[in-house]
Amino acid sequence: MKKPVILTGDRATGPLHLGHYAGTLKNRVALQRTHDQHLLIADMQALTDHADRTGQVRDAVLEIALDYLAVGIDPDRTVICLQSGLPALAELSMLYLNLVTVSRLERIPTIREEIASRGFGRAVPAGFLSYPVAQAADITAFRAELVPVGADQAPLIEITNEIVRRVNALAGEPVLPEARALIPEAGRLPAASGRGKMSKSAGTALPLSARPEEIAAFVRSMYTDPGHLRVEDPGQVEGNVVFAYLDAFDPDRVEVAELKARYRAGGLGDGAIKRRLDALLQELIRPIRERRVTFSQDPAQVLELVRRGTERARDRTRETRDLVFRALGVGAT
Amino acid sequence: MKKPVILTGDRATGPLHLGHYAGTLKNRVALQRTHDQHLLIADMQALTDHADRTGQVRDAVLEIALDYLAVGIDPDRTVICLQSGLPALAELSMLYLNLVTVSRLERIPTIREEIASRGFGRAVPAGFLSYPVAQAADITAFRAELVPVGADQAPLIEITNEIVRRVNALAGEPVLPEARALIPEAGRLPAASGRGKMSKSAGTALPLSARPEEIAAFVRSMYTDPGHLRVEDPGQVEGNVVFAYLDAFDPDRVEVAELKARYRAGGLGDGAIKRRLDALLQELIRPIRERRVTFSQDPAQVLELVRRGTERARDRTRETRDLVFRALGVGAT
Repeated sequence: MKKPVILTGDRATGPLHLGHYAGTLKNRVALQRTHDQHLLIADMQALTDHADRTGQVRDAVLEIALDYLAVGIDPDRTVICLQSGLPALAELSMLYLNLVTVSRLERIPTIREEIASRGFGRAVPAGFLSYPVAQAADITAFRAELVPVGADQAPLIEITNEIVRRVNALAGEPVLPEARALIPEAGRLPAASGRGKMSKSAGTALPLSARPEEIAAFVRSMYTDPGHLRVEDPGQVEGNVVFAYLDAFDPDRVEVAELKARYRAGGLGDGAIKRRLDALLQELIRPIRERRVTFSQDPAQVLELVRRGTERARDRTRETRDLVFRALGVGAT
Repeated sequence: MKKPVILTGDRATGPLHLGHYAGTLKNRVALQRTHDQHLLIADMQALTDHADRTGQVRDAVLEIALDYLAVGIDPDRTVICLQSGLPALAELSMLYLNLVTVSRLERIPTIREEIASRGFGRAVPAGFLSYPVAQAADITAFRAELVPVGADQAPLIEITNEIVRRVNALAGEPVLPEARALIPEAGRLPAASGRGKMSKSAGTALPLSARPEEIAAFVRSMYTDPGHLRVEDPGQVEGNVVFAYLDAFDPDRVEVAELKARYRAGGLGDGAIKRRLDALLQELIRPIRERRVTFSQDPAQVLELVRRGTERARDRTRETRDLVFRALGVGAT
């Protein structure tokens, strides 16, 4: 039985954080046993809004690879590869750009919102407007059947499948498979303040390399229930960041349910739930941090792993590129 | 002394015609002696408005290569290469898309006009809007210093040089040379009707494979001066298509000047000037047509020449790609 092919990855803008771990990295570690998983470090896509920060993008490649290895991604089970090392992705992107209209791209909700939130206005880089097409190239080049994405990114899978159907119609045969979004059950982790989600750009991220005192400070700063002044007062669980994190990380669901009931009824202090969460996060992050330190002592070896993964991915993506170009009759020689 | 590098070429939408010969092919035959000339058969660019006609694009590759060889392009002096065989062009395109805004592309006069004339409206393919960026990738990938273009295409060289300056500024060193437009002295040939220019899409093109009777019919159909009814009447030279063609093709400038004077004064019939032009065009096209027939008897050999040219171009363009990516710090492994 052929394992289903998964493509996922990360924009190379900086190291990953606890939000990535909860939202996707943990899942990937599990998926690599049952799926043919590819992780794409998207350094070209990072340039779509970081064109003047190529140094940051380059540094992020190593950081992200370290994060992958530290959380338990096994390069023998998962192909870790670098987007800029895969010319077929650019070739397919340039081909697909002809199959999608500018107005179709402008209608994608995330594109519209990101153009607004980044303040691009009319000065949106052409590469930014076209990144959904580049993403379709990534997905189809790996002939991925499953693509783990957040719920807000489902429209990006839709445009990928529009391109897939257009290619197959032009070719007169099913050259490319359609992709299916794999939307995680867990929502995104809130920031410690409870305002917005954990985000590197907002400065609210807890890195996977966080030291014990950083973790402790992060938990201490968490928003709970401002009306819950004394231990014996009833407290609010909804919107309480500590409980959101316990929901995300505490393996003992029964105990968490009991804690919530006690907190609601009154008689459970913030200190107690924060101590529980701190212990949990310390235990979660410690081995990740330690493995990360070990791997970071030999960056050349880490980049060599990425290089080898990129070579494997190069074969696969070039094969798809040839398949698509041949099926469409592009390239005469 | 290193010869200056020229890049030019043709969109792969169909065979070339007499208008191309007068406007550029003749020049290219001369330039290949003094310049390091590259001819790019732009099959990827042809898809920007022919995405659903890939068969036509593929057939055009052979037709154009035949035209090149027939007019005297020497594959030992000129590199004839195929755009879809050069992944570095797509890679540089995807990089450059991040350096240009959508509104900058929309402001390019030819893009604006072509969007209107093709009736794209808001449904313009993203690949069509971005083709100036792809063209900048073509030009810079060959590190071309001279680019022969029509006067209306000078803004496309301007945007190329904006990208060149942006790349060099980001790199902190002059990685890429700026390109200079080489604008031909001769304007474009009129259609036989005198309305508009010779154009394949308008159905007014005389192909380079035209048979003697096609050439004769083409010349017979030419618009002259509707007021010039009898031989002894004075006639108009301005707007007279036959004289436009004599200006373009008759090597005897003195004789043409005398003919114009006699035509203006009265006493020179349309029949006489058409016979002269017919003889000229027959003599011009006959050897081209004959060489074209010879080459077309072995299409595999012609495509092999293109394949070999594409390989040479692949080395050069990959070198530029590596140079630019390295200078910008893109691609860690």
